[in-house]
Amino acid sequence: MQPIPINDPEDPRVAAYRDVRERDLAGRQGRFVAEGKVVLNVLFAARRFEAESVLVLENRLAGLAATLAAAPSDLPVYVASGAVMDAIAGFHIHRGILAIGRKRAPLSVDETLATLPARALVIALVGISNHDNMGAIFRNAAAFGADAALLDDTCCDPLYRKAIRVSVGAVLKVPFTVGGNAQDLAAGLARRGFGQIALSPNGVADIRDIPRSNRMALFLGTEGEGLPAPLLSQLQTARIAMAEGFDSLNVAAASAVALHRLRDG
Amino acid sequence: MQPIPINDPEDPRVAAYRDVRERDLAGRQGRFVAEGKVVLNVLFAARRFEAESVLVLENRLAGLAATLAAAPSDLPVYVASGAVMDAIAGFHIHRGILAIGRKRAPLSVDETLATLPARALVIALVGISNHDNMGAIFRNAAAFGADAALLDDTCCDPLYRKAIRVSVGAVLKVPFTVGGNAQDLAAGLARRGFGQIALSPNGVADIRDIPRSNRMALFLGTEGEGLPAPLLSQLQTARIAMAEGFDSLNVAAASAVALHRLRDG
Repeated sequence: MQPIPINDPEDPRVAAYRDVRERDLAGRQGRFVAEGKVVLNVLFAARRFEAESVLVLENRLAGLAATLAAAPSDLPVYVASGAVMDAIAGFHIHRGILAIGRKRAPLSVDETLATLPARALVIALVGISNHDNMGAIFRNAAAFGADAALLDDTCCDPLYRKAIRVSVGAVLKVPFTVGGNAQDLAAGLARRGFGQIALSPNGVADIRDIPRSNRMALFLGTEGEGLPAPLLSQLQTARIAMAEGFDSLNVAAASAVALHRLRDG
Repeated sequence: MQPIPINDPEDPRVAAYRDVRERDLAGRQGRFVAEGKVVLNVLFAARRFEAESVLVLENRLAGLAATLAAAPSDLPVYVASGAVMDAIAGFHIHRGILAIGRKRAPLSVDETLATLPARALVIALVGISNHDNMGAIFRNAAAFGADAALLDDTCCDPLYRKAIRVSVGAVLKVPFTVGGNAQDLAAGLARRGFGQIALSPNGVADIRDIPRSNRMALFLGTEGEGLPAPLLSQLQTARIAMAEGFDSLNVAAASAVALHRLRDG
């Protein structure tokens, strides 16, 4: 692998890195911006994603040798000075490591579920529109060994730059797919034999009393509205018991508590 | 209570709201900026804090009537147009509700612990330097009924504007005090009969196997460094079991899992 020096911020070879903040808007097209060494390691190990190129600060290149050794040998590695890198990206790139990634052919909900083992834990996300929460939920899902994530059409894109960063790369690790509304996800899960739990502040059961079954899905809704009423009336519901007078848990924190309860081992 | 119209951004009566972002730096002086109706409700109910004044967007005043009814009748309530409010604050105030709060006389670690009941749960924070994490940890502490928080000298200020916002006001609800280093906190807790658990990725016990005792303190350290080695060698340590290959949990998520395990009820 021969690093390619970039001296001109307008160099067309680094066009994908131009104005990285604007690029975020293009997330749904299946391309995304990965930042930092930890995320790059996850990207190179991911089966559902591939790197298009890497852009590295010249004084970070040596420290990245082991990471880049895991990349395809024909991956373009662009190297720039701090001034050139910041001029390309449009703001200061603190960590000095960027990559453009690309989604391989996406799987449907059913295809995703079909790949899972007989014992599996899935999260189903409905209306999660905040990128910090999305990233944090994926980080928790990876930490507690969730096998896949299903997203309804109203969720934000996990491949948004900030969501990837907050997830520490977990959005590239936990297989996810976007498909339909909450009812569609529930129907798809039922067809594949998944028991389904809807987490809600008004849930009937305490999450501590929910037994783990072989195939299990946990529905998480947006903080403001919660999960849609038709879904809640259709699924078994569970709550996380809280102190009186401060009945408020961030959805990412709630996912950590619930996934820790339901995980294996 | 008679609202006071403010038409000039330079009006000296709203000097405390000028350039709110800069004001954050003054957090340690015991004054802070609270944002939004939910936080304002917590502030008015807090015993350890008091409001100095409120600055409200004119079209938000009516919706704030019930909240303001809980405030002292001599509290100055300044009312401004959106243009004037943004000019005062130095950026767009989305929610249209700001308040300046003030800490009453702070208590020492020992005074804080002395106020607690025979059965109590305390968090001890060491080196938490990220305001999002600080706010999120307090939100979890309030949700799971923690009775107090002790902070070492290297923690960031929970009264920083963003930490208050992320906590949804919990930093004004869960009593906290800053005192010394991690060893000082441990010594102070021991004197008051608190059993102490240090949460660490390499902890000896699984957090699920830690029995809840009457007086219990949970130590949480920064994500990068973790808790200091001398403290870990001195206390009982506990880990949160995670999936192999992604041994990474945000400290706020870890606090949610551990506090949910240790809480009463």
